[in-house]
Amino acid sequence: MRVSELSRSSEVPVATIKYYLREGLLHRGETTSPNQARYDESHLRRLRLIRALVEVGGLPIAVVRDVLLAVDDPEIGLHRMLGRTMYAVTGAGDGGGGFAERAEAQVRALVDHSGWTVSDKAPALAGARSVLARMHELGHAPSEDTLRRWAEAADRIGEADLEAIGRLTGRERVAETALVATVLGDALLAALRRLAQESHSAARYPAPNQ
Amino acid sequence: MRVSELSRSSEVPVATIKYYLREGLLHRGETTSPNQARYDESHLRRLRLIRALVEVGGLPIAVVRDVLLAVDDPEIGLHRMLGRTMYAVTGAGDGGGGFAERAEAQVRALVDHSGWTVSDKAPALAGARSVLARMHELGHAPSEDTLRRWAEAADRIGEADLEAIGRLTGRERVAETALVATVLGDALLAALRRLAQESHSAARYPAPNQ
Repeated sequence: MRVSELSRSSEVPVATIKYYLREGLLHRGETTSPNQARYDESHLRRLRLIRALVEVGGLPIAVVRDVLLAVDDPEIGLHRMLGRTMYAVTGAGDGGGGFAERAEAQVRALVDHSGWTVSDKAPALAGARSVLARMHELGHAPSEDTLRRWAEAADRIGEADLEAIGRLTGRERVAETALVATVLGDALLAALRRLAQESHSAARYPAPNQ
Repeated sequence: MRVSELSRSSEVPVATIKYYLREGLLHRGETTSPNQARYDESHLRRLRLIRALVEVGGLPIAVVRDVLLAVDDPEIGLHRMLGRTMYAVTGAGDGGGGFAERAEAQVRALVDHSGWTVSDKAPALAGARSVLARMHELGHAPSEDTLRRWAEAADRIGEADLEAIGRLTGRERVAETALVATVLGDALLAALRRLAQESHSAARYPAPNQ
């Protein structure tokens, strides 16, 4: 299909498609004349992926670019490619005032308690520290008990995620699934958490006047 | 303290503080002269909360405003107030092409399976449907097994959240904690999920060359 049709099918403006082509987020089409190229289903799929990561996952375009470069790089092994992909989508956030040390010790204890083997350079370590420090600063840090229960739930989710990935074949498919399941999955998990909260809240605080 | 000192302590520009005052996100200070007001610790706390919701939680200012109005409204009961607060922070997102019906049925089945009692109008229902439809569209929807395990983990998180809230006293404190634990908690849970994923990935795909 031509770029105009690709634009209609994907609901992405032609100018945006051209920008993605220049930036390497989208692979080139097959050149049919000096000013025209033909695009196929793979371009449509990639455009949908980019839009979902931006619109649902809230990722900046620069991060999407880094992530897709890791997905497209055939040189790296599976765990490493998953790592690069996941590292890119985890912002470390900024500091949390004077609570950084306390938060750091708590995250370290949580990782030990969970038996997790993670790199000291994992951005999620810095991310967890930063958010927790911010919660301390606000005077609303979760208790040790709550933190442990969150970590146990996160462990079950991570275990389910990797089992799902283990059932797949094909490198590119694995990378894309990991990416979608993680970025869009965060949004879905947040929604499921809200539903669980509402249900537990209704059970705990029944409203006589409703 | 004066507004200049409030600005220094909170690292929020004076112009932004005045904007928050006009919009009702921040309560007025005690007027000391026609052009001056005195602010206290409660203003500093509120400013920190607003900044955290915007910077870490990624909420738009209009949503922060709605949420804080619900928190500040003394007329409504606890479950309802929590509901309003949580409903405001859950964007429904946009549709997901032709997969809406399938996603709707899956979310409905998930709620039934989990034994959750939630309003048909819960924005998280629409949010879950929308994200799931998007994942179907991308060809990377989670399996039924993964969805159930995510919902079970979300249920444990929601249960821990409401137990933590149940240990608190004071209406405003409850509302603020629920808000911080939910919005910043989503970011923390996402980080913990990444750590768990990394650990399970390392166990599943050991890299001989690393």
